[in-house]
Amino acid sequence: MKIYLAGPDVFLPDAVEVGRRKAAICAAHGLTGLYPLDNAIDLTVPDASRQIFCGNEAMMEAADAIIANLTPFRGAGADPGTVYELGYMAGRGKFCLAYSNDGAVYADRLSRSMDVRSEDGRLVDPQGLTVEDFGLPDNLMMIHALELHGCPLVTPATMPVDIWHDLAAFEACVRMAAARLIAT
Amino acid sequence: MKIYLAGPDVFLPDAVEVGRRKAAICAAHGLTGLYPLDNAIDLTVPDASRQIFCGNEAMMEAADAIIANLTPFRGAGADPGTVYELGYMAGRGKFCLAYSNDGAVYADRLSRSMDVRSEDGRLVDPQGLTVEDFGLPDNLMMIHALELHGCPLVTPATMPVDIWHDLAAFEACVRMAAARLIAT
Repeated sequence: MKIYLAGPDVFLPDAVEVGRRKAAICAAHGLTGLYPLDNAIDLTVPDASRQIFCGNEAMMEAADAIIANLTPFRGAGADPGTVYELGYMAGRGKFCLAYSNDGAVYADRLSRSMDVRSEDGRLVDPQGLTVEDFGLPDNLMMIHALELHGCPLVTPATMPVDIWHDLAAFEACVRMAAARLIAT
Repeated sequence: MKIYLAGPDVFLPDAVEVGRRKAAICAAHGLTGLYPLDNAIDLTVPDASRQIFCGNEAMMEAADAIIANLTPFRGAGADPGTVYELGYMAGRGKFCLAYSNDGAVYADRLSRSMDVRSEDGRLVDPQGLTVEDFGLPDNLMMIHALELHGCPLVTPATMPVDIWHDLAAFEACVRMAAARLIAT
């Protein structure tokens, strides 16, 4: 069974090594991890970004499931590129799993970086845009997609010191994927 | 032909009115706009967020196409909830369109809000995470998904004064959707 390994992990300085560790964890549970950087793309060609897209899409087609890293990326929410892939896999009817190494409620996390206040019964940010206030760790579309198209978001009981390299929550997803995909 | 109207517009103080304006533009071009807030959800019930998800998913199933507002939201990139929906619609094989009222290159936009520097041939943010540097306005997954599953991202020649209420780029998407969907 093949698992597409989505996440902003590809942006880490040691992105290739993180992919190797994730694939090894999959292998230990009888699964095959497909990591975007396994596609050999020549980054110097003019259409490199399009080739990356096509490589990722082909990997998603080949996979039975996705494990997405939804740890907040450059702000209070998940990496949009990763979220696109989660949506795509849900749309393709594949089994959806994800984790975030920051399990805080979205509104609480946001209020660490900007002024979030109550106004006319809504929680709003400094631009006056509503802040989702359902007690969820991120936008409800991702959270409920996971519940209804796979397994609920996995978060650690306490935030790991190194949110980009701690793979305990990832391994919990792999275990759930193995239990579900190998059994069926 | 039905178009799902995705975007952080639902978070605006005048979210309902913006939806009405978008639906009116669709109607003027012979299309039916489906706006998330058209679903009547009781926000006081415990599973309100799940009901919103299910309502949105049902609307997406009913739609032939999506027009997603990818204008940067609380940071340098698009709203993850909207991006999830774009991915889902691409996965369902629906026709994908989107616009952003900020057409700047992602790396340039990011450098307005944080220190972006070159390091070992990579562009990196203050956390040392790679900054996508393909000259695109947002993450390559969304940009190329639009090219390959619908129409290229629409951006205005100059950023409108009111990025949340200017609907010229939206209307350009509606025109393209009408040309494509009504013709076929």
